Amino acid sequence: MLKLFYSPGSCAVASHITLEEAGAPYEAVRLDFAAGEQRKPEYLAINPKGRVPALATDRGILTETPAILAFIAQSFPQARLAPLDDAFAFGRVQAFNSYLCATVHVAHAHRIRGYRWVDAGDEAALAAMKRKVPQSVGECFELIEREMFAGPWVMGDSYTICDPYLFTVASWLEADGVDPARFPNVRDHRQRMSERAAVKRALAAEQR
Amino acid sequence: MLKLFYSPGSCAVASHITLEEAGAPYEAVRLDFAAGEQRKPEYLAINPKGRVPALATDRGILTETPAILAFIAQSFPQARLAPLDDAFAFGRVQAFNSYLCATVHVAHAHRIRGYRWVDAGDEAALAAMKRKVPQSVGECFELIEREMFAGPWVMGDSYTICDPYLFTVASWLEADGVDPARFPNVRDHRQRMSERAAVKRALAAEQR
Repeated sequence: MLKLFYSPGSCAVASHITLEEAGAPYEAVRLDFAAGEQRKPEYLAINPKGRVPALATDRGILTETPAILAFIAQSFPQARLAPLDDAFAFGRVQAFNSYLCATVHVAHAHRIRGYRWVDAGDEAALAAMKRKVPQSVGECFELIEREMFAGPWVMGDSYTICDPYLFTVASWLEADGVDPARFPNVRDHRQRMSERAAVKRALAAEQR
Repeated sequence: MLKLFYSPGSCAVASHITLEEAGAPYEAVRLDFAAGEQRKPEYLAINPKGRVPALATDRGILTETPAILAFIAQSFPQARLAPLDDAFAFGRVQAFNSYLCATVHVAHAHRIRGYRWVDAGDEAALAAMKRKVPQSVGECFELIEREMFAGPWVMGDSYTICDPYLFTVASWLEADGVDPARFPNVRDHRQRMSERAAVKRALAAEQR
């Protein structure tokens, strides 16, 4: 059985929702980041990166949200979570998820994880990074709103693995100091997502 | 015909090599970053992100290296550049490429593109980011060397789309202040890659 390692409110929510959407048999294992569980030897043996999500399969561990989402879509094709037989359409899905992973999530991470990119004691540099987040995250969402979002789902009429990932990253907007009202498509998508049964189940499980 | 937009020495090298490996018919279009061509309206109409690589196909534009590499592998299956029929093995390929894109490339980018994450005039913060690069990039390559690289190719006996991407990112090590001798697997892989005909053709085209 699949086992998802997650921390509540992290980007692992996207994988959690996608397992629910796929109807996959799985177990969700919560890590307590406040207690540093992601840095303990037991977890580093599972994911040496010390991050979430990680998905344990009967063949081994998968990490990185774009990879996990595509793996779930491929493993449960009857759930139709990605255009698996169309290299171009699948490429568009992957490009969107890669943008969320490598640009949007990274911009966001400069608010509280700036120590990845400057020395942890450099308060002035950490504060400088934090100040820029509303602008850098805001610019990412302007591009998503204007250029990438087809509607009603990210890729258009079909719900795909882009949707839970956008929902997850967009849920950080307020904390990042960005007003969601600037992005009506993204805001309405967030509402549309929150009404899905799979989303409700995943969020309820993380809040338990 | 496919058209690859690239800037010499950028991460687009990975896509350039992969098009050569696939035997794909394509045209390579060079952008002059020093002249700001990536920010001109003509290019922003192609890729609103103002970055490379971008791959123009007869169905539209694809961006993001992990997406482009997987698209090429799927479009030219006879080249056997990815384990397309094995969701777990394909997931491992994607996880590796996602790590290069979202963690390694991002760590590297703090050396000369720190203005993405702090105000461009904040010289102290930009310098603080730059100072951290040898450590942050070095730690990424420790993980690749120790945990991810199977050998002789990234995924083991089979050459995949992970190989040109690792080759590309590893070519930045010296400029990032990291001694490649610390990572014998990665260093030998770089050598092995540089002897491939497809790699020689792509690099020669970029240097013309």
